[in-house]
Amino acid sequence: VDYQHVQVPFEITLWIMLASLAKIGFHLYNKLPSVVPESCLLIFIGLIMGGIIYGLNDKSPPVMDSDIFFLYLLPPIVLDAGYFMPSRPFFENIGTILLYAVVGTIWNVFGIGFSLYGICQVKSFHLQDVSLLHNLLFGSLIAAVDPVAVLAVFEEIHVNEKLHILVFGESLLNDAVTVVLYKLFRSFCEMPAIKTMDVLAGVGKFFVVGIGGILVGLAFGMIAAFTTRFTKTIRVIEPLFVFLYSYLSYLTAEMFHLSGIVAIIACAMGMKRYVEANISLKSHTTIKYFMKMWSSVSDTLIFIFLGVSTIGENHEWNWPYIFFTVIFCLIWRALGVLVLTFFVNRFHVNTVTGKDQFIIAYGGLRGAICFSLVFLLPDFHRKKLFIAATTVVILFTVFVQGMTIRPLVDLLDVKKKRESAPTVGEQIHIRFLDHLLAGIEDISGHWGQYYWKDKLEYFNSKYLQKMLLRECDQPKSSIVLLYEKLERKHAIELAEAGQLGHAPSQPSLLNSHRSVVTDGKSEDILNPDVLENIQEILARNLFRIRRTVPAYNRHTLPGETEPAEQAKEILILRHRSL
Amino acid sequence: VDYQHVQVPFEITLWIMLASLAKIGFHLYNKLPSVVPESCLLIFIGLIMGGIIYGLNDKSPPVMDSDIFFLYLLPPIVLDAGYFMPSRPFFENIGTILLYAVVGTIWNVFGIGFSLYGICQVKSFHLQDVSLLHNLLFGSLIAAVDPVAVLAVFEEIHVNEKLHILVFGESLLNDAVTVVLYKLFRSFCEMPAIKTMDVLAGVGKFFVVGIGGILVGLAFGMIAAFTTRFTKTIRVIEPLFVFLYSYLSYLTAEMFHLSGIVAIIACAMGMKRYVEANISLKSHTTIKYFMKMWSSVSDTLIFIFLGVSTIGENHEWNWPYIFFTVIFCLIWRALGVLVLTFFVNRFHVNTVTGKDQFIIAYGGLRGAICFSLVFLLPDFHRKKLFIAATTVVILFTVFVQGMTIRPLVDLLDVKKKRESAPTVGEQIHIRFLDHLLAGIEDISGHWGQYYWKDKLEYFNSKYLQKMLLRECDQPKSSIVLLYEKLERKHAIELAEAGQLGHAPSQPSLLNSHRSVVTDGKSEDILNPDVLENIQEILARNLFRIRRTVPAYNRHTLPGETEPAEQAKEILILRHRSL
Repeated sequence: VDYQHVQVPFEITLWIMLASLAKIGFHLYNKLPSVVPESCLLIFIGLIMGGIIYGLNDKSPPVMDSDIFFLYLLPPIVLDAGYFMPSRPFFENIGTILLYAVVGTIWNVFGIGFSLYGICQVKSFHLQDVSLLHNLLFGSLIAAVDPVAVLAVFEEIHVNEKLHILVFGESLLNDAVTVVLYKLFRSFCEMPAIKTMDVLAGVGKFFVVGIGGILVGLAFGMIAAFTTRFTKTIRVIEPLFVFLYSYLSYLTAEMFHLSGIVAIIACAMGMKRYVEANISLKSHTTIKYFMKMWSSVSDTLIFIFLGVSTIGENHEWNWPYIFFTVIFCLIWRALGVLVLTFFVNRFHVNTVTGKDQFIIAYGGLRGAICFSLVFLLPDFHRKKLFIAATTVVILFTVFVQGMTIRPLVDLLDVKKKRESAPTVGEQIHIRFLDHLLAGIEDISGHWGQYYWKDKLEYFNSKYLQKMLLRECDQPKSSIVLLYEKLERKHAIELAEAGQLGHAPSQPSLLNSHRSVVTDGKSEDILNPDVLENIQEILARNLFRIRRTVPAYNRHTLPGETEPAEQAKEILILRHRSL
Repeated sequence: VDYQHVQVPFEITLWIMLASLAKIGFHLYNKLPSVVPESCLLIFIGLIMGGIIYGLNDKSPPVMDSDIFFLYLLPPIVLDAGYFMPSRPFFENIGTILLYAVVGTIWNVFGIGFSLYGICQVKSFHLQDVSLLHNLLFGSLIAAVDPVAVLAVFEEIHVNEKLHILVFGESLLNDAVTVVLYKLFRSFCEMPAIKTMDVLAGVGKFFVVGIGGILVGLAFGMIAAFTTRFTKTIRVIEPLFVFLYSYLSYLTAEMFHLSGIVAIIACAMGMKRYVEANISLKSHTTIKYFMKMWSSVSDTLIFIFLGVSTIGENHEWNWPYIFFTVIFCLIWRALGVLVLTFFVNRFHVNTVTGKDQFIIAYGGLRGAICFSLVFLLPDFHRKKLFIAATTVVILFTVFVQGMTIRPLVDLLDVKKKRESAPTVGEQIHIRFLDHLLAGIEDISGHWGQYYWKDKLEYFNSKYLQKMLLRECDQPKSSIVLLYEKLERKHAIELAEAGQLGHAPSQPSLLNSHRSVVTDGKSEDILNPDVLENIQEILARNLFRIRRTVPAYNRHTLPGETEPAEQAKEILILRHRSL
């Protein structure tokens, strides 16, 4: 046995396999996930596995490598989140989201940092050696709400779209703030003296990190869209470009110390509409499917690793510090949401209600990002205390808050997501209103949201689309596109339902006829029922030679290049028969 | 800039990107690929890049790591080949393929090895220090036809199916022989004395390696099929299992020193029919698409790396040895094919013609497997000579043979692949004949191919299907399945063609109306033409509320869970309207 040779890919494959099987297991018994969120179950599995490893080896199980987390596990989840981000509610609430993400996070960092420093002054807690800077550094990593944890919990509780996008958007965009503050405090910790200049540079850096991330992402998004203009003859590699360019945008942003999360989201949201217009339907299915699959596996692995890494001897259990960390995380978030929402509600007709505020504050879950950041801290004598406090905060938020948020949503009767999506009629009305409002804003000279949206749309159809889309795919109205999509789905349903009428849908009927024919031979094909079917099928289909078995070819998938005339021929023949 | 942090994923992504862009480039100018095979172009790009790296750094560019090749680049190609293997021609010609793969490869190894040893005895060539064992070792790595190179060339020349499967099947299955002989000679080289026992053990090992590979592959294939029984509630991770289990089968086989290629092919062929019955249509599209995409990229990377690795100072240019290696490779392969085909033709009605034999002999391309194996050789003083000889043989076969095989096929008028695939009618006749022949063989007591096929089919429907397929998906006749597939395709075409009648297919007409409406605003939606369309669409679709904008959810794709009743409802409404 030569295990060492295949060790790396073998173990990676096994971990992914474990994650997938765990997912199947939960979904088989669908009572459990309705009470306990999947993330809790996965952490629990991780804890058990960590315990087993600890018991067998008698040393701490390996902790999740921060590099693996940031370079390989996080990007798929963020890409999925960005690509499937509902853009309308996101841009409608962008102001509020940014306020929560930027001001809210800064508020939390300083709030938690200063109050923990206050706790450190109490002599009986033996914490006097933890400086203010270290407390602020700890605050900067513990303050940020985690997108992975938020997604895992919020997609199961189905709150209304606005509430969902507020929490989710905040958790994604606060990355820029976290990156800046974390790096700033870390470098301050290593500096002998801090000058005012450094603080000002830090403030400037925030804009660089955020806006730089957006620019890097958009640049890669546009290149991706432009590349898919030329893939008409080689459809199979189309999905690759979506993944490659968005990953490159993430890596490039990380390389320049910009916000990778912001970059990948900008890339995904920027390229989506152009890429979707350029690529084939099958490529599109593949992209969507693979993104879901990948993010799903990543997310599972993260929670399992989180559980595994918790076990071990990396912790210093100073209970007062840990206890007050949890308390301050809760209090400062609640205060922050209250204050910020007060200002938000003054400028919006559509206010954030009290119940919504409670859920926003309560949904501030911490997760794997904090965990990875705390392990990335430079070594100093109280690092293990910070690790312990971070672990407890994560477990508390994921288990206690994650498990109680669903009953609370029901109890408070928070407005849920509407069951049915808007109808075509509603959509048309929404469009009309948009255009109307854009016109009103234009006339009244108020350069608001609708005015800019309209200008962007104009710029898009005038320049961007011409550059990024193929000639033949030039813009159909999106309503017509929607109709085409519905019609296609419809047709498939029609075929499948029509099938029910004449195909052997009752296997029992089939089986009863089975044993009549000679001994076991020719059982599945020469059955009279099936023969009858075949005759019927042949009678209806002999109008042209059907091509069925495609030849092997590396670069094409079977049945991809049916010419339009073929479709027309069928149409004519069908219509005649009707 | 922190490049080191992201170096590994960044460079991998860039290489893949380069490969994809090169592919797009070739397909844009489709005159070039019709003359020069893509593999040659890719090697050429690699040579240029290698030259640039050599020129800039003034040292040899990095050679392709054998581990990377065998663990990451080869499996996707073999998986794709196995999954899309046309099973009927493969099993019909399995005897001939095995004869070529096993006896043919052994013949080539010993032929090339002994005759090169003869050349080494010529004093003026300064090769007396290359022993017989080293020559045989070299023979074992240079004799095997390479599946990657064969696929790349043969899928462009479209020879008839039997010829294709003979060359392609041989190139895949000879892996077991190559593995055994290569390892055997390598261990002999390091042994002080060789006993008869060792030789006998080597012969026995061949069966272990081949049959072991098949068993490992089939075992993983069955587990994969069994796993997909339980994925009904979580469709998005279905494609993952196909990739994970087949990769695990490859790694496991490699771990036990069995043939990984044989294992992955057995796994893919074994699981295919069950997995396809269990998974959803969209998962199926994703699997097919991703496999093609992945193998396509792997194959591109392999040829580029091959070119890059060629440049450098790893070579010892002893021209007589290199010249005779090329000559002997050609001669022994031609002789082998002639002799083996003579025996094959005595036992088959469907003989392999002289032209076919020529193409089989001429299509014996060498590729990246030889190249990786020669670098894996233990260090000894003439290793650079072997590397040089291998490089020349690969370049000669890929460039000279690969580029001339297409004109030769045309010149000799070799039977081409039939353009149209068999019709449904033909397929039914083929089925009937199979059953008839199985009956005849049963009556006459001759346990031939058809008899065993029938028995296998019986075992499959009696036990395997019940175990591996979901209850509700129990076997429909494959003809009925085919019909369903055609009907579905048909329906899509119908929808798309029907679309042509009332949607704005003439953009010119649309554009002429554009500028009438107010300044730039409401341009793409309020156009009278489009409005008319929308009205028409609404009138035809208002019978039920359409769900259009799906909510974000990590685990499901939009529109996946439409209940059957919905389809029925549409059917009824549609039929009424007709």
